[in-house]
Amino acid sequence: MAKLAHNAYGKSDVRVTKVVRHGDGGGRHDLLELSVNIQLEGAFEKSYLSGDNSQIVATDTMKNTVYALAKKLTIESIEGFARDLGRHFVERNSHVTSAVVAIEEHRWNRIGAVAFEGSSREVRTTVVKTSRKCVEVTSGLDGLLVLKTTDSGFVGFLRDEYTTLPEVTDRIFATVVKAEWRYTQMPADANAAHAKARGAMLEVFAGHKSLAVQQTLFAMGEAVLKVVPEVEAVTITMPNKHRIPANLKALGLEFEGDVFVTTEEPFGEISGTVER
Amino acid sequence: MAKLAHNAYGKSDVRVTKVVRHGDGGGRHDLLELSVNIQLEGAFEKSYLSGDNSQIVATDTMKNTVYALAKKLTIESIEGFARDLGRHFVERNSHVTSAVVAIEEHRWNRIGAVAFEGSSREVRTTVVKTSRKCVEVTSGLDGLLVLKTTDSGFVGFLRDEYTTLPEVTDRIFATVVKAEWRYTQMPADANAAHAKARGAMLEVFAGHKSLAVQQTLFAMGEAVLKVVPEVEAVTITMPNKHRIPANLKALGLEFEGDVFVTTEEPFGEISGTVER
Amino acid sequence: MAKLAHNAYGKSDVRVTKVVRHGDGGGRHDLLELSVNIQLEGAFEKSYLSGDNSQIVATDTMKNTVYALAKKLTIESIEGFARDLGRHFVERNSHVTSAVVAIEEHRWNRIGAVAFEGSSREVRTTVVKTSRKCVEVTSGLDGLLVLKTTDSGFVGFLRDEYTTLPEVTDRIFATVVKAEWRYTQMPADANAAHAKARGAMLEVFAGHKSLAVQQTLFAMGEAVLKVVPEVEAVTITMPNKHRIPANLKALGLEFEGDVFVTTEEPFGEISGTVER
Amino acid sequence: MAKLAHNAYGKSDVRVTKVVRHGDGGGRHDLLELSVNIQLEGAFEKSYLSGDNSQIVATDTMKNTVYALAKKLTIESIEGFARDLGRHFVERNSHVTSAVVAIEEHRWNRIGAVAFEGSSREVRTTVVKTSRKCVEVTSGLDGLLVLKTTDSGFVGFLRDEYTTLPEVTDRIFATVVKAEWRYTQMPADANAAHAKARGAMLEVFAGHKSLAVQQTLFAMGEAVLKVVPEVEAVTITMPNKHRIPANLKALGLEFEGDVFVTTEEPFGEISGTVER
Repeated sequence: MAKLAHNAYGKSDVRVTKVVRHGDGGGRHDLLELSVNIQLEGAFEKSYLSGDNSQIVATDTMKNTVYALAKKLTIESIEGFARDLGRHFVERNSHVTSAVVAIEEHRWNRIGAVAFEGSSREVRTTVVKTSRKCVEVTSGLDGLLVLKTTDSGFVGFLRDEYTTLPEVTDRIFATVVKAEWRYTQMPADANAAHAKARGAMLEVFAGHKSLAVQQTLFAMGEAVLKVVPEVEAVTITMPNKHRIPANLKALGLEFEGDVFVTTEEPFGEISGTVER
Repeated sequence: MAKLAHNAYGKSDVRVTKVVRHGDGGGRHDLLELSVNIQLEGAFEKSYLSGDNSQIVATDTMKNTVYALAKKLTIESIEGFARDLGRHFVERNSHVTSAVVAIEEHRWNRIGAVAFEGSSREVRTTVVKTSRKCVEVTSGLDGLLVLKTTDSGFVGFLRDEYTTLPEVTDRIFATVVKAEWRYTQMPADANAAHAKARGAMLEVFAGHKSLAVQQTLFAMGEAVLKVVPEVEAVTITMPNKHRIPANLKALGLEFEGDVFVTTEEPFGEISGTVER
Repeated sequence: MAKLAHNAYGKSDVRVTKVVRHGDGGGRHDLLELSVNIQLEGAFEKSYLSGDNSQIVATDTMKNTVYALAKKLTIESIEGFARDLGRHFVERNSHVTSAVVAIEEHRWNRIGAVAFEGSSREVRTTVVKTSRKCVEVTSGLDGLLVLKTTDSGFVGFLRDEYTTLPEVTDRIFATVVKAEWRYTQMPADANAAHAKARGAMLEVFAGHKSLAVQQTLFAMGEAVLKVVPEVEAVTITMPNKHRIPANLKALGLEFEGDVFVTTEEPFGEISGTVER
Repeated sequence: MAKLAHNAYGKSDVRVTKVVRHGDGGGRHDLLELSVNIQLEGAFEKSYLSGDNSQIVATDTMKNTVYALAKKLTIESIEGFARDLGRHFVERNSHVTSAVVAIEEHRWNRIGAVAFEGSSREVRTTVVKTSRKCVEVTSGLDGLLVLKTTDSGFVGFLRDEYTTLPEVTDRIFATVVKAEWRYTQMPADANAAHAKARGAMLEVFAGHKSLAVQQTLFAMGEAVLKVVPEVEAVTITMPNKHRIPANLKALGLEFEGDVFVTTEEPFGEISGTVER
């Protein structure tokens, strides 16, 4: 006999753009663009087992709820909006045990009172899990591409018959930072906390003398813990977006740390969790 | 003080194409195309904490190892190759506690003795975790887009002030199936097991009278358990790739289950785990 | 003074799924999934120069027109539907000089009376330009990934100080075929013509002893001209999806035409137009 | 008899990262990341017709040439580098009639003396066609996502039975700008010219009261002509990245220009060429 061991469902990639029109005479607007994912857990077995949907909140209703609450609420931060959305579903439905609301916020840079530029792939993220007992808040960022042209080496690693990588004391270090930090509780000012965590990671990346991607990753995590007291742990994933020295010798030329081949695959993938 | 709570690293998207040239006179070749991801867990703290890489297997070496073992071994199945790769790293390195090797196999259809067509997005997958004590094998598929034009409805769900979705007894049901089934042990014939599981899911999808995506998902998982005795649990994720009735009424025409708007976002996302 | 030298506008990626329900007792359905792009050319200068939209067919109306005609018309082929759509806009609007309608048809394979599998990236394409005087029909395909494991070499090319590529008499030849063939007039049976052209290209690819991608490309174009009399010219683009011999020698192993590194970039890009 | 009416081939997506290390004591580095596409036209018929490659410059050699010239030359601008690459192939090969070199430059923002952030999708582009007689330079940008929250309307367009779009005097206007401007000759300072053209387009976009995407497009093109005297024509393509008012009325709420649904498809696609 088959049984349902776990289930969850929801709506993904609900995209909403919100404009806040300030009545300040200057006609300045604020812009917020979010992608919202909602997943509910609870007593939905009847739908899976027999197609009885009497316990099902339609995913289309979840989508509408995002629009409705985006209208009704002041969105101070994505963390707060995710909590409000989760609370909505848990409070209304006694059979829903938890709601996991994940939000990505796209970056828009102001170029005028009502105009914005948004070409960046970087997104600010949050995942808020709301259950009857507690609210767990994890925030972070994804898609932040950074590169340093020096102050990065990699020596002293293990060697065997399949090791061909030379030791290098000066290489390019490029990565797309994905970071998620867990708060002990909803921070008083989630926007400020995000800015501080992001700034600390960039500062370490730019200034660090790196002996390994692993070492830089740890130092970046440590810096987040240092500047944001409400963070209890931070997990960082940093793919190594390799820039490989061009084989100039075969072309009768000398490589002098200047010409590199940009590659997408394969790539190293380094991760770590740093706690207090 | 910050401490390292968890760490792992490895090489992702190592892509390898292997040709097997049969000496059978007819000149027939077989083709295998894989993307390999390797992640090691173990005593790598020194690299994170101080940049001492003496315990680090370079990810470049992992890449070379994939090529070397692809050369030296007969690849009977991706499950077997993943196990062999994992074992290689665990056996050689006493400080490595486990290796997680994930492989995607691309689908190539034969169009000649030495020619193949491979336009499909569907991939066969496996994740094999090898530790000193045991080998855990999970296999599956991803990217399998299927659609049925009828025999699907959705009625009887909860309604509130944000519910606008009408009940329908006949709709299009389209999804991209992602399935992962956990074996109790490495199956004797992993290729046959994969074919049986895939076939069972397609048969249910095509024949099932669906009252909810949830119900069809459960039935598909149940079918996998039925046809492959070595499977102990199967997790399926099925996004609802909505085809929405075109608003023909506004155009002076009548919708008769015939013209639908294909949409990518937002989408329902349904998942479930079915066990024995 | 700035002047408007050229203009065009329209709606892109109008996606429509059409179900044809056969009243044949067996309950068999047909499925058609299209992405439609429409571009109009004509006397739209007033909108560009002064924002006077009195000559503008809204792109939203174009979208609705796709849905409406998908409802009202029997779609025998994408070529016919593209012509009907183009004619609609040209006939109704005397200031529209031409309509270019490009359609991509997604591939769905039947897996049941009402169920289909559609994971392929390959699309069937057409571009129909309708003006007051004539209809120009170009059809083709895109995204057709093919690979042959042998019967492909590349020797005798020019060499200079930057040439490091060795001559090879046996290599993997992989490509994503994009082909566009121009008809002298709308073919009587565009579906049959497409199937014949596609089949001819695949047959040549699979059987050809290739001395250069260029040579295979020409032979494939020649084959299309041979099997479809209504075609007057065919343009084929074939990126060289390189599979590079793994550097096994550095690993103490021998390359024997067996283990290749799959790469996405950079890639050779070969194109040619073959005419009668 | 089939004949070869047109042919061209080359290497695409040759990605190169160049570091310039300034000997200025401060240890400041500059970073340049390019994707280079090369297409040659000339007397290559023998390769297509009979597989005789004696006139073929291998695409692998083109790739190496990019690396070699990136090493040997000072890259003042992508326009100059594209011209130098094209000249290289035309001058060395009397049977090559022209070389079309297209370069995309990725945007990197300095975050330290040797560190950079590069998450933007926007690229600076150039296409330089070098033949024996002349050099044609077209430059531009792609991927520049901009949005304005007001000062955009769309009224007075044609209406028929398939028109459901309401007239609006205040809507969101979002687009991904692609622009290509043709220079009368290689500009003295291509970097300054690019910055001026880009700045002018952004200024118009941010400040313009838009009555139609078409009108804004023309005004942006006009501005480029005004600020860069070396430009003789500019072609702009602006997809309408629709933000659709959320259907709040159905949820018992009122839309007040505040909550919009972000959509990717279908999308309006507007283009125009503005000349002196």
